[in-house]
Amino acid sequence: MRVLITGAAGFIGSHLCDRFLREGHEVIGLDNFLTGSPDNVSHLFGNPNFRFFKYDVTNFIYLEGELDLILHFACPASPVDYMNHPIHTMKVDSMGTLHTLGLAKLKGARYVFASTSEVYGNPEVHPQPETYWGRVNPIGPRSVYDEAKRFSEALTMAYHREHGIDTRIARIFNTYGPRMRVNDGRVVPNFIYQAITGKPLTVYGDGSQTRSFCYIDDLVEGIYRLAIEEGLSGEVFNLGNPTEHTILDLAKLIIDIAGSPSEIVFTDRPVDDPDRRKPDITKAKKVIGWEPETSIEEGLKRTVNWFREKLVAG
Amino acid sequence: MRVLITGAAGFIGSHLCDRFLREGHEVIGLDNFLTGSPDNVSHLFGNPNFRFFKYDVTNFIYLEGELDLILHFACPASPVDYMNHPIHTMKVDSMGTLHTLGLAKLKGARYVFASTSEVYGNPEVHPQPETYWGRVNPIGPRSVYDEAKRFSEALTMAYHREHGIDTRIARIFNTYGPRMRVNDGRVVPNFIYQAITGKPLTVYGDGSQTRSFCYIDDLVEGIYRLAIEEGLSGEVFNLGNPTEHTILDLAKLIIDIAGSPSEIVFTDRPVDDPDRRKPDITKAKKVIGWEPETSIEEGLKRTVNWFREKLVAG
Repeated sequence: MRVLITGAAGFIGSHLCDRFLREGHEVIGLDNFLTGSPDNVSHLFGNPNFRFFKYDVTNFIYLEGELDLILHFACPASPVDYMNHPIHTMKVDSMGTLHTLGLAKLKGARYVFASTSEVYGNPEVHPQPETYWGRVNPIGPRSVYDEAKRFSEALTMAYHREHGIDTRIARIFNTYGPRMRVNDGRVVPNFIYQAITGKPLTVYGDGSQTRSFCYIDDLVEGIYRLAIEEGLSGEVFNLGNPTEHTILDLAKLIIDIAGSPSEIVFTDRPVDDPDRRKPDITKAKKVIGWEPETSIEEGLKRTVNWFREKLVAG
Repeated sequence: MRVLITGAAGFIGSHLCDRFLREGHEVIGLDNFLTGSPDNVSHLFGNPNFRFFKYDVTNFIYLEGELDLILHFACPASPVDYMNHPIHTMKVDSMGTLHTLGLAKLKGARYVFASTSEVYGNPEVHPQPETYWGRVNPIGPRSVYDEAKRFSEALTMAYHREHGIDTRIARIFNTYGPRMRVNDGRVVPNFIYQAITGKPLTVYGDGSQTRSFCYIDDLVEGIYRLAIEEGLSGEVFNLGNPTEHTILDLAKLIIDIAGSPSEIVFTDRPVDDPDRRKPDITKAKKVIGWEPETSIEEGLKRTVNWFREKLVAG
C-alpha cells in the first residue's frame, strides 16, 4: 500500500512510519516540526520506501500518483503545546482535516483520523464507550483541542456519509513511550525527566485523579489493525489501556523504576483537568481482536531507558 | 459604525441589516445565497449606507477601509439545509469563522458570533444557562451543525484570549418571523404553510417535545444590545424566549390563528431530535437588560400575515 502519514515526525506518527515500513508498505510522511522532530524519523532517511516532506497541512495538499491510505495524525497533542499554539491547533484539526479528507476523496484512499479521549471531556460515565457523547466545555481553555477534535470527527463522518469515503476514527487515550518530548508537559515524560535528574516530581492536586496509560507499541498495533482490516468504514474505536493508575502511584512507580532519590511535591490542578479517563475497549477487542499487552512496569522501563540514553546523548 | 454582516440575505441577517441601518450605521452585507435570498435585502438596494456583495465566506475576505464591527451570521441554520449541505455548513463555521476573525484582528473590529442553542445538544439540564456544557453526539448526523458551531465558539474564544479581540457570542434559540423560507423545514414555517394551504400539519413523534419560540424583532433587539454595549468582551449570552410550548400546542395555535381547516398528523421523529430546549436568559436580563416582549399569539399573527402575502404574491 502507498500510505500518507501527517504528523509523521511526531511521537505516534513516527512509530506508525516504522510499523508501516516494516510491513512492506510505501510511506510518505508530512510534518511541519511545530511539535514533531526530525530526530524521530532521521533513521528512516535513505529507506527507498520512505519519503518525507516538511509541510504544514493547513495548506492545500496534493500528491502525484495513487494513494491507498491516509493517516491524519498531525496536531499538537499535549496541553502545553496546544495552549501555546491554540489557533494553529484549531487550524490543523479543521483545515488540515478538510485538506486530507479532500485528498482521500480525490484518490479514493481510506482515511484514518487520530482523535482523542479528550472528546469525552470530563466524563460522567466510566469507563467511556464509543457511544458516550462526552462532556466538553466549548469555551474553556482546553476547547481549542477538544472541540477541534470533535469537529474533525464530525467532518470525517460527513465525508463518509456524503462522499462514501472509507473512514475510521481512533480515539486515542494516554499513550507513552520513547520519542515523547521531555518538555511536552505530559505526565509521563515530566515525571521521568524529574526522576532521572533527581528533581522533585510535581503532582497536580492531590494526585488521586486517575489515568490509563497505553504503551506506544500496543497503540500502534491497534491503529495498524484499524487501518488495515476490511469492513470498518465509518467506525469509531477507543484505543487505550483500561488499567487505571492514580497520578500519585505513577509518580512512585517511576521513582522506583528509575532508582531515583526524587521526592514528590503537589501543585495546583489546571482548569478543566479531568478527574478520570478510562477507555472501554470492548469494541476493539471484539471487532479487531486488539488489547494492550505491555505491563506498565515493562513499558515504563523501556521509556526510562530511552530517556536516559537521550538525555546523556543530548 | 461601519458594520460587516455575513449571511446578510438570511432570515436573521437581513433583519439585522434593517436594524443597523435604521440606527444610522453603515452596513456591508455578504451572502452567497446558498440559503439566503436577494428578496430579503432587495428593499435596501439604493440605500447609500448599504452595500451588498454576493460572496462565499469560506473564501478569504478582505475589505478596504475601517471596520468597527463584524457579525458572523452566515450558515445554513435549519436541519433540512445543513443536512443537504453538510460539508459546506462545516466549512462556513470553520473557514468562514477563521476568515472573519482574521479580518476582525486586522481591522481591530468587534466580533459577534451567531451561535445556537444546538451547542447544548439534547440537554439534561433545563433551562440551559450559558455555563452548561451541552450534550452533543460528535458523530451523529446533526453534528455537522452542532460541532461546527461549538468549534466556532472555541475559535472565537481563542482569538479573544490570544489576540485580545473584543468578541461576543450569541447562543440563539428558536426564532421565527417574516422572511423564513416556506420550505426550510423548520416547524413554524412548516406549520404556517400547511395551515394556510389547508394541508395536514405534520407533528414529529407525539408532539410532546417542547420548544421556546422567540419573535425575530425581540431577537434582533438582543443582538443589537449585545453588539453595541461596552464591556462585554469574551462574553456568551443566551438569546431566546423562555416560554415553552409543546409542538402539538403550537400546531393547534397556528391552525387557530390562520383560521385553517387543517388537521394534525403524526410522523416519526428525526435522529437526535432534542426533547426540550429552553433558554435561561437570566444573564441577558441582568447584563443587557433584555427579554422578549412579543407574545406568541402576536408574533404568529404577524408571521402568518407575512406568509399569506408572500404566498399570494409568489
